[in-house]
Order: sequence, then C-alpha cells, then structure tokens
Amino acid sequence: MKKIVFVRHGQSEWNLENKFTGWVDVDLSEEGYNQAENAGKKIKEAGLEFDLAFTSVLKRAIKTCHIVLEESNQLWIPEIKSWRLNERHYGALQGLNKKETAEKYGDEKVHQWRRSYDVLPPLLNSEEQVFDRKYANLPKGTVPLGENLKVTLERVIPFWEDQIAPLVLDNKTILVAAHGNSLRALVKHIEGISDEEIMKLEIPTGEPLVLELNDDLTINKKYYL
Amino acid sequence: MKKIVFVRHGQSEWNLENKFTGWVDVDLSEEGYNQAENAGKKIKEAGLEFDLAFTSVLKRAIKTCHIVLEESNQLWIPEIKSWRLNERHYGALQGLNKKETAEKYGDEKVHQWRRSYDVLPPLLNSEEQVFDRKYANLPKGTVPLGENLKVTLERVIPFWEDQIAPLVLDNKTILVAAHGNSLRALVKHIEGISDEEIMKLEIPTGEPLVLELNDDLTINKKYYL
Repeated sequence: MKKIVFVRHGQSEWNLENKFTGWVDVDLSEEGYNQAENAGKKIKEAGLEFDLAFTSVLKRAIKTCHIVLEESNQLWIPEIKSWRLNERHYGALQGLNKKETAEKYGDEKVHQWRRSYDVLPPLLNSEEQVFDRKYANLPKGTVPLGENLKVTLERVIPFWEDQIAPLVLDNKTILVAAHGNSLRALVKHIEGISDEEIMKLEIPTGEPLVLELNDDLTINKKYYL
Repeated sequence: MKKIVFVRHGQSEWNLENKFTGWVDVDLSEEGYNQAENAGKKIKEAGLEFDLAFTSVLKRAIKTCHIVLEESNQLWIPEIKSWRLNERHYGALQGLNKKETAEKYGDEKVHQWRRSYDVLPPLLNSEEQVFDRKYANLPKGTVPLGENLKVTLERVIPFWEDQIAPLVLDNKTILVAAHGNSLRALVKHIEGISDEEIMKLEIPTGEPLVLELNDDLTINKKYYL
C-alpha cells in the first residue's frame, strides 16, 4: 500500500494572537513546538520511515518538518521546500486581528472569506507588498496578491503532480509538513472531495494524518496517528 | 567575487567525552548549540545571503546548518545533504575514548592515525558494521570501513566538482555546514595546500570561514567572520 503522511504545522505566534497569517513568516509558539515534537514521537512510535520530506518556504512549516524528523530520528532524509506548499495567501487581511476584521467588515463577510471555496479576500495592491527574497526568482505575476482555497489548490496541485505523486507512485513514503489550506487542497484533490465539503474539513495542528493510497493514487484509508 | 562559506559543526556530545566519532551520529552538546547560534548571528551581521546550503547526513552538521540558517533568517533556502560531506570515518576507533586508545596502542600510533595524511586507522571488518538506513541506497563497497584524510578527500571532491563548484561558478553564494575533515579536504583542494601542511590546519568549530574565489575558483581571500 502506498503511503503519504501530512502534518499541519503546530500553533504559530499569530494563531495565538488570532491574526490572519497567510504568507507572513511567523514562528511557532511554544505550544507549536510541543505539538511538532508530539507529532514526531507518534511517527516514531508508528515506525514510519520516510524517504523524503516536503515543506513550504515558511518557517512554521519548515521547523515543524525538522522537529518531526529529528524526533523520529530521520533528520538526514532529503527535504524539498516550495512556495507552492505555502499557506493560502490572505491578501490585505494578513496581519489583521480576526475580531477587529469582523468588526470592520461584518461577521458575514469575514465568514465568507474564511469559509467559502471561491470568494477572494481583499487583495494586496501590488507584488511589491509581497516582496521577499524567497520569491525573487519567480516570474512576475506568479506571487498571489490574495487567495481563496480554489486558487490555493490550483498552485498546489501542479507541485503534487510533478514532484510528490511520482515518488508516491514509486512506493516512496513521503512526509508533507505544511499548512491548513495547502494540505486541505491536497486532501481535496486526492479524495475528490466537493468544493462545499472541503471547507468543513479541519486538519488539526500537529496530528500526523496518514493516507494509504491504491496503485492509481485513489484513497484506500485515512487516519490520524 | 565568488564566495563560499564553511561552518564546522559546533561541539558534539562525543567531542565533550573525548571519543573518536567519525560517522557515529551523535548530537550537538549544549555548547555546540550555542556555537551554531553564534555562527548564525555572525552571518546575519555580515549580511551574508545564501542561495543554497549543503550539509552531511550526520545530525550534528545538519542541526548546525539549520541553526545558522534560522539565526540569519534564511531557513527557507534549499538544502542538500550528502554522505560525501560526512566526517572522516574513523574505522574501528569510533566510539573509543582517545586517552584509552593512546594507552592501548601507544601515543605515537594514535598521533599517526590522527595527524598523518595517508595512514589508515584500524578498519571495521565489514560493511554491516556501518549499516544504517542512511547508506542503504549506496552500491556495495561505497561505504568506507575507515578513512584517512586522503580517502576522505577522494570522496568529498567529486561532490565539490559536480554539485557545489558549478553553483559557485554561477555566482551563487553557498553555505557548507560540515565537519573538521570534510571541510579540510575542501580547503586543501581549493587552496592547493600540500599533504603535510593540511594536517596542521585546524578549522575551529562554529566559526564561519569565508572563501572569496576568483573566476577560475582559485583562492583570492580567506577569513573568519
């Protein structure tokens, strides 16, 4: 049985402050470190041995990846980072407190931005606002100014198809340490979950999610460790 | 000017216990963590921005690499790990206390094993003694049973030629977080240091060593941060 393991990064400093985070590169909170350690211990207890790990270019996911690998004594495996596994970009909402945003725009609007599949958040004005050395080598127009889950999925799935899925097909056991919405996109794609249903799927932080896949990469079994 | 930065991993638990370590995968000591953090801070102060990092498959180097990148706020850069950057394999001496070894074999013999370019240490009997999932994909006969600096250099330099040097030639700024002897091998090769002189070169732990190179990769300038 082919196998892939998803770990959503532990709590971040901004989760704690209840802010929209998206692509802002905040660190894990102390609780987040603990969650990542626990995820690593569970992976070790389950005897899961990875051939390769994927993560985003955001430190809360990278550090979760490193902690999980270290705890399970496989820090030496190859690791590939990509912006395509980044969290959903939250546009102009990034950095705003969720409660203040609700007061400003109204609960319904905020609920829509957070829970609808294809409604975009208020966008940033220009790519300069996203400028970071991390993205300096990407062609103009690649860096999003704000994303819904639909757009997130559209940039995650090419990476799945080109980089991750071929290794799973080759029976490699893969770890993906990433974010709530990039993992949601992967699960939606693999399981064929509807646009509506996917928004109800909440992947908890720091709980390793194992997907056992058939030879054609359809889902056979899904469980948390 | 082309630039490459070498960092020798911080003190390990076995440095502290005065044991021959080689390929044994021991952790950093507390002092080792601090040294890695200081290296990262110096790199940040120097404004060094890396395009890519290389390290070995041994956790004391990998963790040094991660700590340096995190402290200098570039944990997101691509990182490539290879057994070819591992420490010199110390054969049957691995795990032995240096003082006890001197009592058993005599000071002169131990001095020779430690300080001569081409005298091999007592070898392990078979590859099974080195078995580790890290090396499971290497062809039989690849994993050494014990190395001197000459043999270490012979397996480090192909990696330099194929993986690192092409990036330096392409003006990428590269970090190599590795070990006393794999870094010695690189410095010997780049600077054309004699077999005798190289044994006197001691690269201190956790001190970033910057090599500025000419267009043909000959040395122009070398300094510690």
